[in-house]
Amino acid sequence: MSSTKVEGRAAELLGEQNFCLVSTLRADGSVHAVPVWVDVQDGRPTLNTAEGRAWPRNLERDPRVTLTVQNLENPYEYVTIRGRVAERTHEGADAHIDALAGKYLGKDEYPYRQPGEERVIIRVEPEHVHTYGS
Amino acid sequence: MSSTKVEGRAAELLGEQNFCLVSTLRADGSVHAVPVWVDVQDGRPTLNTAEGRAWPRNLERDPRVTLTVQNLENPYEYVTIRGRVAERTHEGADAHIDALAGKYLGKDEYPYRQPGEERVIIRVEPEHVHTYGS
Repeated sequence: MSSTKVEGRAAELLGEQNFCLVSTLRADGSVHAVPVWVDVQDGRPTLNTAEGRAWPRNLERDPRVTLTVQNLENPYEYVTIRGRVAERTHEGADAHIDALAGKYLGKDEYPYRQPGEERVIIRVEPEHVHTYGS
Repeated sequence: MSSTKVEGRAAELLGEQNFCLVSTLRADGSVHAVPVWVDVQDGRPTLNTAEGRAWPRNLERDPRVTLTVQNLENPYEYVTIRGRVAERTHEGADAHIDALAGKYLGKDEYPYRQPGEERVIIRVEPEHVHTYGS
């Protein structure tokens, strides 16, 4: 599958304070979906989660992921991104969740950190990017 | 799998002008996701689409569906519903899309009807309903 980039209006929608619905596959093949924070780095959707949660566990088994970002100010406009996990790293993950807290909450530091929590960055290689309603 | 109902805060979130992210499974097992209108009838999420579109076709092949409804006024609050298609009918589908146009657009009639379009109601039997952030 060829890869592409998140750019133009799609990148704007991910750059604003919109949420990203992350859909992954459970072991039984059914869909798990959860809204999370997101940003774009080098044309790749970049997510941040904690080890042990359901959706990063799902992605260890099956790296396919579908992201949907709806414009909160005009929900008829949205972007869907189908892709795969390109990289999964702890490096820089604490600084990245703090940056997302800045974007979404206007705070210097992520305020919901749990004791023992290990943050992880998940970078998605987009294969299909479609924007609707723009 | 035992069934349950959408009630309480979950029913309120579906009753407001929030969108429903419908996640279904493509033939290759990857996720298709699209935001649509929704309401609740007898505790069941009730969707309306046109024959031939991707997600109702996916549901003919695999009836499992995951719905996510985020509170547009407080996106940290959302409900996830996992279930299966319980009923699929053309009966009343035109009146139902008009009712949804009333709910979401304040219009008496659905303004985007296409020539030859055949509307269909899809009722979902919920198996798991979880509300977060309330």
